[in-house]
Amino acid sequence: MKKITIAIISITILALMGMGYQQYQNRLPNQEDDEKMLRKIYDNALLHSDSYENLRYLCKRIGGRLAGSPQAAAAVEWGKQTLQRLEVDSVFLQPCMVPHWERGEKEQARIISKLIGWEEVNICALGNSIPTPEIGLTAPVVEAKTVAAIADMDVKGKIVFVNNPFDHKHMDTFDAYSGCVGDRYEGAPMAAKHGAVGFILRSLGHAIDEFPHTGNMAYEEGIPPIPSVAISTKGAEYLSKIIANDDEASFYMKLNCQSYPDKPSFNVIGEIKGSEFPDEIIMVSGHIDAWDNGEGAHDDGSGVVQSMDVLRLFKDIGYQPKRTVRCVLWMNEENGTRGAREYLKVAKETKEKCILAIESDRGGFAPRGFFIDADSAILKNRFAKLESFKKILEPYQLHIFQEGFSGVDIKFLKEIGTTCVGLVPDSQRYFDYHHTANDVFENVNKRELELGVAGMASLVYLVDQYGVVLEEGKKD
Amino acid sequence: MKKITIAIISITILALMGMGYQQYQNRLPNQEDDEKMLRKIYDNALLHSDSYENLRYLCKRIGGRLAGSPQAAAAVEWGKQTLQRLEVDSVFLQPCMVPHWERGEKEQARIISKLIGWEEVNICALGNSIPTPEIGLTAPVVEAKTVAAIADMDVKGKIVFVNNPFDHKHMDTFDAYSGCVGDRYEGAPMAAKHGAVGFILRSLGHAIDEFPHTGNMAYEEGIPPIPSVAISTKGAEYLSKIIANDDEASFYMKLNCQSYPDKPSFNVIGEIKGSEFPDEIIMVSGHIDAWDNGEGAHDDGSGVVQSMDVLRLFKDIGYQPKRTVRCVLWMNEENGTRGAREYLKVAKETKEKCILAIESDRGGFAPRGFFIDADSAILKNRFAKLESFKKILEPYQLHIFQEGFSGVDIKFLKEIGTTCVGLVPDSQRYFDYHHTANDVFENVNKRELELGVAGMASLVYLVDQYGVVLEEGKKD
Repeated sequence: MKKITIAIISITILALMGMGYQQYQNRLPNQEDDEKMLRKIYDNALLHSDSYENLRYLCKRIGGRLAGSPQAAAAVEWGKQTLQRLEVDSVFLQPCMVPHWERGEKEQARIISKLIGWEEVNICALGNSIPTPEIGLTAPVVEAKTVAAIADMDVKGKIVFVNNPFDHKHMDTFDAYSGCVGDRYEGAPMAAKHGAVGFILRSLGHAIDEFPHTGNMAYEEGIPPIPSVAISTKGAEYLSKIIANDDEASFYMKLNCQSYPDKPSFNVIGEIKGSEFPDEIIMVSGHIDAWDNGEGAHDDGSGVVQSMDVLRLFKDIGYQPKRTVRCVLWMNEENGTRGAREYLKVAKETKEKCILAIESDRGGFAPRGFFIDADSAILKNRFAKLESFKKILEPYQLHIFQEGFSGVDIKFLKEIGTTCVGLVPDSQRYFDYHHTANDVFENVNKRELELGVAGMASLVYLVDQYGVVLEEGKKD
Repeated sequence: MKKITIAIISITILALMGMGYQQYQNRLPNQEDDEKMLRKIYDNALLHSDSYENLRYLCKRIGGRLAGSPQAAAAVEWGKQTLQRLEVDSVFLQPCMVPHWERGEKEQARIISKLIGWEEVNICALGNSIPTPEIGLTAPVVEAKTVAAIADMDVKGKIVFVNNPFDHKHMDTFDAYSGCVGDRYEGAPMAAKHGAVGFILRSLGHAIDEFPHTGNMAYEEGIPPIPSVAISTKGAEYLSKIIANDDEASFYMKLNCQSYPDKPSFNVIGEIKGSEFPDEIIMVSGHIDAWDNGEGAHDDGSGVVQSMDVLRLFKDIGYQPKRTVRCVLWMNEENGTRGAREYLKVAKETKEKCILAIESDRGGFAPRGFFIDADSAILKNRFAKLESFKKILEPYQLHIFQEGFSGVDIKFLKEIGTTCVGLVPDSQRYFDYHHTANDVFENVNKRELELGVAGMASLVYLVDQYGVVLEEGKKD
């Protein structure tokens, strides 16, 4: 009897190994139907998506759309109308107040040195910066490798230039960004604290080019605000060389940016009601505001048009979700996240049950997978559940399933128990465009954009079918 | 006793499953050292590669370089000099005769119809096409959806337009290309056989744009050659609409391309001699010829500079391979593969033992994995061996390990027992550039190009360490 038992156990195990244990483990209950549905989703996205033409409109007819600007208002109206044309079950605006900062006229800057006379360089004001005097600001310029190093330097009455380049060794370029983005927030306060009169940041990108990268900065209470700009990477390399050879070099900058009182604005929301569990929300999202110096094509027009297109796609293939599929176009991701904070506030009041939120905000490049996040008490369970979809998604080149940062807007929803997912496209080109005049429609590829729609729709479909909770073992 | 045995077996199995059976199975003998070496390879490629600046030179200073052209001769000389500067163990040229076809003056074309008068459209001659008469060729134009459909049409005295668009549903865009590229070779002979006087191919790409795609075509013996061109996809859509509304529409084309006698040329070869097994060759390669209408940046300047950079990288990190690492820059991939055929001939004569050949010829995009091929008698074994490297390469986003087509040049080497590997980058943008005026340096991203260098170097390193034969079970 025992021999037979051993034999049976052995055969079972060998069989399991033969067919691939992993494969066996991850086979979905309705795998064949699901495979057909995913193929349908991809076919539809690659043949019938509106995302690319919607992006063209948003970029070319509306353009840069920072919160509080006329263009942001136009984008809200366009988002609402575009969702309404899909004839989804409801479309509405969620009000929120947003900060309002304007760049004003194009910035000017010169490196002034006895070595060269002067040379114009490309800069842009960092978001929230105060302007220079109308005549501009000219002062000796000193270079710091890091923000921390400023503390040990004599910067009184000077302009501080932090020249901390991207670390090229990271596979994921967002890791390089993470290593430098703190400088954008902490640089000016640190410099001002030690008496500096202006702040220059090396643009946050890999390429050595002429495009300065904007992005938000902040002042600290009790420390005087100073004009703060980013210089293009090419300009940064040049400025660094001049400083190294002329310790009397100075810098001239002229900004006439301005902060205005908060303005009313909106998150734009559209949804298809669930047939069985209408109270359970699966969210797809991107942010509708964008920096004013480009067209906000990758950041984040792509996420906006992809999210809207998920609703179009389900309508078009006749898929009626069991749960409510909601598209949210966030307002003010770039300089305040007021839309996301307002959404959270309302969601808490209404005890909203948002089981899954996806944000596409890493550019409209070819998708490679998902970063998954949730409150630490449930993360392991939710990750395991979503990872069980990996096998069925891998044929669509979605290989990356990792615990990781989800998205600037949806991260707040962890507080209400939401599983938060960032769509992860290939990251290599993102920081060639991010927050620059180069973030334009022409730099988005139609197929790459559409594959993002399909990837998001596929994950929504699977969660609509199977939920986000791994029941096995009841780990929650 | 039996209970204990069962318990031990069970525990072992559970442990194996716990740590991931797959992971256990694929752990390399010197995994930790290998991981360190791969990190070193990636760091070097991302920080110190010459590939991008080499590509700039090849594209901007030499440009399009079809076999037999002065530019091809310049590219050979540049390839040799650039390899010599690396101070590798030997650099040499392998002579071969190549076809010589020249496009001549820029092509001209008009759609002529009573509906519109006439409209200029963008065309380019297909490689190997005969010219039109000096005054141009004007004839009624008819549309066929497929080449096969021509047989049932009245095409006598007419120009045949085959309007077979890419199938957008494929994940891998090369599958869409495979579905249409036959038209480029078979279209003109089929049309001529039925009495047509000219042939127009819809360009082989996804995007609707103004860039016609060239590429080689062939005539068949006994069938009169007819002028053969590709029309841009935008032009194709327009021509199709005109034909649908005017069955008397005609087409005017003027080509003055010309075939000349074969010319002498060369494969360019450089290598680092192996310290233990110098007779075993691991090859990295790309083709140095490129179509004349662009700069051959993705096709295949990228493969050329990546292959050269693998040698630079090993020298730079001080890695002395056990086997010989050989860089081959193939001549005449685009219209004859004479370089590859000559290499095979010599390799057979010298009984060369090339154990692995990699070709990078799918563009300089972010690498996603490898397609693996070999003679059918050994394929399963070699595939299993290379797939055992998957786990260690996945952190570098090399996820795709599939049996599949390797490369146009290296495929010949299957005859001498070589395991042939195609580097597989993300394919979504390739056919926006392929064989067009748009295949220029500016459309290659530095990091994506460098990741290809690192991916190739990593695989070369692993094969240098472990060979290509899976010993386990001696399946060969």
